Amino acid sequence: MTAFSYKLIATDGPARRGEVITPHGAIRTPAFMPVGTQATVKAVPFDEVKRSGADIVLANTYHLMLRPGPERIASLGGLHKFMNWSGPILTDSGGFQVMSLSALRKLTENGVTFRSHIDGTMFDLSPERAVEIQALLGADISMQLDECIKLPNERAEIERAMELSVRWAERCKRAFESRAREGYALFGIVQGGDDAELRARSAKALVDIGFPGYAIGGLAVGEPQEVMLRVVEETAAQLPADKPRYLMGVGTPEDLMEAVVRGIDMFDCVMPTRNGRHGAVFSRFGQINLDNARHRDDPRPIDAESPHEATRTYSRAYLHHLFRVQEMLGQTLLSSINLAYYQTLMQGMRDAIERGAFAAFCAQTKEGWAKGDLPAL
Amino acid sequence: MTAFSYKLIATDGPARRGEVITPHGAIRTPAFMPVGTQATVKAVPFDEVKRSGADIVLANTYHLMLRPGPERIASLGGLHKFMNWSGPILTDSGGFQVMSLSALRKLTENGVTFRSHIDGTMFDLSPERAVEIQALLGADISMQLDECIKLPNERAEIERAMELSVRWAERCKRAFESRAREGYALFGIVQGGDDAELRARSAKALVDIGFPGYAIGGLAVGEPQEVMLRVVEETAAQLPADKPRYLMGVGTPEDLMEAVVRGIDMFDCVMPTRNGRHGAVFSRFGQINLDNARHRDDPRPIDAESPHEATRTYSRAYLHHLFRVQEMLGQTLLSSINLAYYQTLMQGMRDAIERGAFAAFCAQTKEGWAKGDLPAL
Repeated sequence: MTAFSYKLIATDGPARRGEVITPHGAIRTPAFMPVGTQATVKAVPFDEVKRSGADIVLANTYHLMLRPGPERIASLGGLHKFMNWSGPILTDSGGFQVMSLSALRKLTENGVTFRSHIDGTMFDLSPERAVEIQALLGADISMQLDECIKLPNERAEIERAMELSVRWAERCKRAFESRAREGYALFGIVQGGDDAELRARSAKALVDIGFPGYAIGGLAVGEPQEVMLRVVEETAAQLPADKPRYLMGVGTPEDLMEAVVRGIDMFDCVMPTRNGRHGAVFSRFGQINLDNARHRDDPRPIDAESPHEATRTYSRAYLHHLFRVQEMLGQTLLSSINLAYYQTLMQGMRDAIERGAFAAFCAQTKEGWAKGDLPAL
Repeated sequence: MTAFSYKLIATDGPARRGEVITPHGAIRTPAFMPVGTQATVKAVPFDEVKRSGADIVLANTYHLMLRPGPERIASLGGLHKFMNWSGPILTDSGGFQVMSLSALRKLTENGVTFRSHIDGTMFDLSPERAVEIQALLGADISMQLDECIKLPNERAEIERAMELSVRWAERCKRAFESRAREGYALFGIVQGGDDAELRARSAKALVDIGFPGYAIGGLAVGEPQEVMLRVVEETAAQLPADKPRYLMGVGTPEDLMEAVVRGIDMFDCVMPTRNGRHGAVFSRFGQINLDNARHRDDPRPIDAESPHEATRTYSRAYLHHLFRVQEMLGQTLLSSINLAYYQTLMQGMRDAIERGAFAAFCAQTKEGWAKGDLPAL
């Protein structure tokens, strides 16, 4: 088994081309991680997730904790085996979904008690339990438990949550080290809302504790894009160059590019699969709504030059038909087409950074999005 | 392009091992055709349909006539291209679904007028239009328009529908020949309900008209299995040995085996995909309900000895989980696992007929079903 490591291969300004090594293989960065919420990337079989170009997937501790339960997954041989994905897996800590989905939660210094949004069962989640669950799942990369709050918010509240998250980071690290999962990694999560000083304090405290990778959490929770990008830029500057940086829960293709410009290495987001299930496509030509009747007679694929088979094969007319008649295959194909576009974009960014041509790549990509979709036939 | 033909390779009693050649490739018989109702085999991408072992798929004229319309599919290059399936396609005539799905239908000598079950639009379907639609779709094998009635029914009514179907068969043949689709095939459909004499008259009339293949229609419409099998046996005996025989809309794995014993070569049925979408699996061990909590902790695959990857890979615990949390991938995997079981069964039958060991194969297969599922862990 190979131990966790990060190698910085090339930079172009703050943009970084690197490689994260995990026990289950390498991750080319900048990397986009498809979200496998309940041990499945919604509507897309894992062989197709792999074909789309993904090196790593994310799974949600909160959902798996409720069903089927981490002890059950462990007794079945761990999450890799359970869901038949042999590559790296990153799991979140569950904290974010506890805050956004569950009812009757009670937060204390020790952790959080909440009711399942499914059947009302009570659960406890502490820093130690979050680490334990992620170990039971067998995550290559575990995340510390943190408290993620909505923005905008009062500074005192942001500070309280950030300081609690730092204390939980310490406890998570101790718990992680006591489990002796050699070669596996635990990331710290920078909090601090939109406040530069709090973000800097959070980053410094986490770096002092010491993690093999750092995430920026608490963004994409309602703030404008320029606020998010400012915080990303300020925070990335506080993080060590020799460790990977992960921006949690972000975002649109444009968000990804703007965050890579500011030094981010890893991303996850449900957007490509969620939008795909609703008939919306991400492409070189910007967003395309397949529900629109203009596609009804269009024999052209989404993108004839895509490296992804489904993207360059199925006609817009066929994809439109599948949505119109509400056939599941439409959701499967569009989810997979969107995942592939995200991966193509990441590959484009990686290549451009290596060539020292990242700015030109970004300009050209944005031009394509701005130009919009192919003219109607 | 290769012209349509049928070659009888081996027999074992009335059971036949053969090969149907079509413009889009060969069909090993006995053959099971997955149903691609609305230009998609529900929940299963076509590359997976192919991987499951299918040589040919069926598509429904009624559904495609409503949406997206046969003229549209033709202008998009035909059904093969539209749905990205390069193998043979058989289309039904639309008659069966007109009877079972549409409202306000009016049947005359000329054809049938009906309202779409989707939006109430009026449509006309005549023998000539049914042939035209199937030509627009580009079907390798077209079916005559017939009138399919429910069983039990009065003899006079069965006779009337059968005689109408024979007259429509003649009109379909004329219409098909006038389109000069050389190398493509039109099958006649034997009707006559559960009445041996009417079935024999129908078969003789169709053989006199002359078709490159014959279907047995009007079964699996509510009659007991033994009635169906008696009619199959009596009717198959009336059909020429040098033409393929297709039993429409049948059935369970046992139905398939019992019909092959009686000389049937081709089948279609929604059962593997429909049951799969509802959590029910067909297997060597009989039917398995994945919803059942007994599978919750079971690390074993559906069948470790299956030639089909998903069938021998995913644990029952994982498949159970996917259904419990209502993830689409569960429907996709079970549909594909069921299609693969049907194809494995057909392959087993083909091999056994070639070896002259069909009776032993049937006995062994039934024994497996009767023994039931693996004992719980």
